[in-house]
Amino acid sequence: MASDKKVEAITSMDVDFAQWYTDVVKKAELMDYSSVKGCMIFKPAGYALWENIQQELDRRFKATGVQNVYMPMFIPESLLQREKDHVEGFAPEVAWVTHGGLQPLQERMCVRPTSETLFCDFYKNDIQSYRDLPKVYNQWCSVVRWEKETRPFLRSREFLWQEGHTAHATAEEAEERTQQMLNLYADFCEEFLAIPVVRGRKTDKEKFAGAEATYTIEALMHDGKALQSGTSHNFGDGFAKAFGIQFTDKDNKLKYVHQTSWGMTTRLIGAVIMVHGDDNGLVLPPKLAPTQVMIVPIMQKKEGVLDKAYELKEVLSGFRVKVDDTDKSPGFKFAEQEMRGIPVRVEIGPKDIEANQAVIARRDTGEKMTVSLDEIAAKVGEVLETMQHEMLERARMHRDAHTTVAVNYEEFKDAVANKPGFIKAMWCGEQACEDKIKEDTTATSRCMPFQQEQLSDVCVCCGKPAKKMVYWGKAY
Amino acid sequence: MASDKKVEAITSMDVDFAQWYTDVVKKAELMDYSSVKGCMIFKPAGYALWENIQQELDRRFKATGVQNVYMPMFIPESLLQREKDHVEGFAPEVAWVTHGGLQPLQERMCVRPTSETLFCDFYKNDIQSYRDLPKVYNQWCSVVRWEKETRPFLRSREFLWQEGHTAHATAEEAEERTQQMLNLYADFCEEFLAIPVVRGRKTDKEKFAGAEATYTIEALMHDGKALQSGTSHNFGDGFAKAFGIQFTDKDNKLKYVHQTSWGMTTRLIGAVIMVHGDDNGLVLPPKLAPTQVMIVPIMQKKEGVLDKAYELKEVLSGFRVKVDDTDKSPGFKFAEQEMRGIPVRVEIGPKDIEANQAVIARRDTGEKMTVSLDEIAAKVGEVLETMQHEMLERARMHRDAHTTVAVNYEEFKDAVANKPGFIKAMWCGEQACEDKIKEDTTATSRCMPFQQEQLSDVCVCCGKPAKKMVYWGKAY
Repeated sequence: MASDKKVEAITSMDVDFAQWYTDVVKKAELMDYSSVKGCMIFKPAGYALWENIQQELDRRFKATGVQNVYMPMFIPESLLQREKDHVEGFAPEVAWVTHGGLQPLQERMCVRPTSETLFCDFYKNDIQSYRDLPKVYNQWCSVVRWEKETRPFLRSREFLWQEGHTAHATAEEAEERTQQMLNLYADFCEEFLAIPVVRGRKTDKEKFAGAEATYTIEALMHDGKALQSGTSHNFGDGFAKAFGIQFTDKDNKLKYVHQTSWGMTTRLIGAVIMVHGDDNGLVLPPKLAPTQVMIVPIMQKKEGVLDKAYELKEVLSGFRVKVDDTDKSPGFKFAEQEMRGIPVRVEIGPKDIEANQAVIARRDTGEKMTVSLDEIAAKVGEVLETMQHEMLERARMHRDAHTTVAVNYEEFKDAVANKPGFIKAMWCGEQACEDKIKEDTTATSRCMPFQQEQLSDVCVCCGKPAKKMVYWGKAY
Repeated sequence: MASDKKVEAITSMDVDFAQWYTDVVKKAELMDYSSVKGCMIFKPAGYALWENIQQELDRRFKATGVQNVYMPMFIPESLLQREKDHVEGFAPEVAWVTHGGLQPLQERMCVRPTSETLFCDFYKNDIQSYRDLPKVYNQWCSVVRWEKETRPFLRSREFLWQEGHTAHATAEEAEERTQQMLNLYADFCEEFLAIPVVRGRKTDKEKFAGAEATYTIEALMHDGKALQSGTSHNFGDGFAKAFGIQFTDKDNKLKYVHQTSWGMTTRLIGAVIMVHGDDNGLVLPPKLAPTQVMIVPIMQKKEGVLDKAYELKEVLSGFRVKVDDTDKSPGFKFAEQEMRGIPVRVEIGPKDIEANQAVIARRDTGEKMTVSLDEIAAKVGEVLETMQHEMLERARMHRDAHTTVAVNYEEFKDAVANKPGFIKAMWCGEQACEDKIKEDTTATSRCMPFQQEQLSDVCVCCGKPAKKMVYWGKAY
């Protein structure tokens, strides 16, 4: 980065949200486009976010008994075809390997779009007795789906994710695990990413190919669009029957296992950008931020300033802290660290040193405060904690302010047209109404939230008796 | 695992080493074969080894300034062909993707066998000025090479690895980084895996496709075969010229960058098995072991025994410790934990509790000692430390005892035929002699060690003046 570079302004989010998003991912150096169409490059700042997400999620998984494994990245075509709904859902969007070395393959294989079929094939051999259950396995890997339209972090032909795949002796245990993981995802989003989510169940139309039930967490982006942020599926014994996964139970009877799967992806990084970002760039919640505190020396060529900055780094070593000792101007550094979303900036110059103080600036609010060097570690800790908390609350307020109740179809259409955000409305349970709503408005059913409300007695679309309250919205 | 199962004996390593190896990876539940020919499944116990390797290596990488990134898994054919030697080395053994979804691709792509070409394509755009250098990037991913013969962990069509790719302003800096990473690998093997290695340089015949110099660490397995355990390559400016990666230097002149790459793979797990294992199964060095201490309660149904075992677990919580409270017999548990290679077993039963003591058993030597419960944490810590140290020393003694000096071709051929292990011998520097040796004996040059010795003045094969001492051996 040249010292004479200027930090270029990015498009304002209110002017063009899509362009603002692209500007942020580029200028914050999170990713780059590659020569491989539809695939992206995770640059260090972007990959570091994924590493932190991975580490925290993995820790939470393991606390519930999850074990990590690794399956092959290829799926023979015959294996993919074993479960009917599943193959219909995925076959149109997979990449096919047809040659190995110089030879054509006897059977072509796809690069995994998801690994249910591989886990089933493995479980079929690995599970014999109730003593082998439950299996609570997960893998961290990349998957490929041949998308036509791609967008950094949100939709790309290859993405990184984790996929959990479990097998249980009973339907109840499978359902419990499905919900447990959905709640783990929701807690993770709220506690770590400071992103509030709606927890609920997908309608049959929107559920995963092959699942009996799909649970989802839905987050609202700054522009009022929804982002599906994690899903957890209960397969019942459908896959077990298709693959013949049976075990001898305690009563000595042969039974089919009940299975679940659940996944979160690098699109979470897109959610962080679109929930917390502003016109100065990225804003990272402190728990996620690879660098939490950036110390910017002022007049760093003056004797003692850099030394004091490094000393301060030691004092703040309880946090993820760096000193920006490059030869750029302080103004440039401020703008650059803001673009990168670093939660706290500490400014220290000759006058501060004389007065035994430093200036702390918060990324999210821009608030600045002068702090005695004697209590700076405690103060920085407080600011980071407050910021983490307030970012979640601010996002929650934004979401609530952008959630509209519609009790009839006029209100519904008006809301989609004029009030970006979630729409809460009653639904009769028929897919015909979902289809009509999508056709009329482009909004889709996001989920049937666990916390139901009785907004009215009739379906917002057809007027027949209502069965469920549904969150609707335009989605990424 | 059923309580009435017996731990089946495995093939003795002296009877059939290859079968012993297969037995260990299966019975220690490290891996399983998959329906995808040539690809394997990492089961929890196997993947946990990789996670620990990854965590420790990553920590060491980052301490030297390495940043992690992620590149696409596909390489368009035209990109793979950009560097002549490289494509010749890899094209015959890649998997080709020809269709995306229902459409044939305009240009076929291979699944990465390694990512030099992708990094070069990225660096070409990302590097402009000397201020952008060095780039010290690494990625953790899986790669695919269409091998004909496969073997768990040692050779499979898909394997997990890390690949570092760096770009530097000068040849000197690139050479320094190449050697730095080789030494990092060597230290990691010795300090963490307790595997002694020979550090050296590959001959031109054995170097990486496209490299100016390849450095390697070579380890000796229990059966006397060598295993290449990590390599570090200096590319000079060859790739930079092929891809046009130039930067403006401080003197305002346009120059090509100098590049390196370096990698370690899941074959390290194979090395751990084959260096440390014995006829009772796996033996894990304590630093690598996912579970370092297994507490086995004796007569666990007696009141107080299980409670005491859990209490002991708390006392030993500074280590990675578990209690085997399954309903299997103690004898079965002993055999099972031995098969899995768990470094220390702690036995505690009613009589021990009465005497305020427990029995500690070391996996590598089988040594048992009775220890007072008041000092058990300190004692377990000592045993783990001693074991880590002694495993390295034992492997070093084994290697040294299986390293033969040959000063003429008769001695050389006799050594290959009758003395499994490394052979140290002088070499004239001509590939013709390497070819002849390989044809006559199947031994290959493993490396020209950094620590050279003058064993004689002439080549062991042709008798012409010798240029280098070389380690030779049969290799995996």
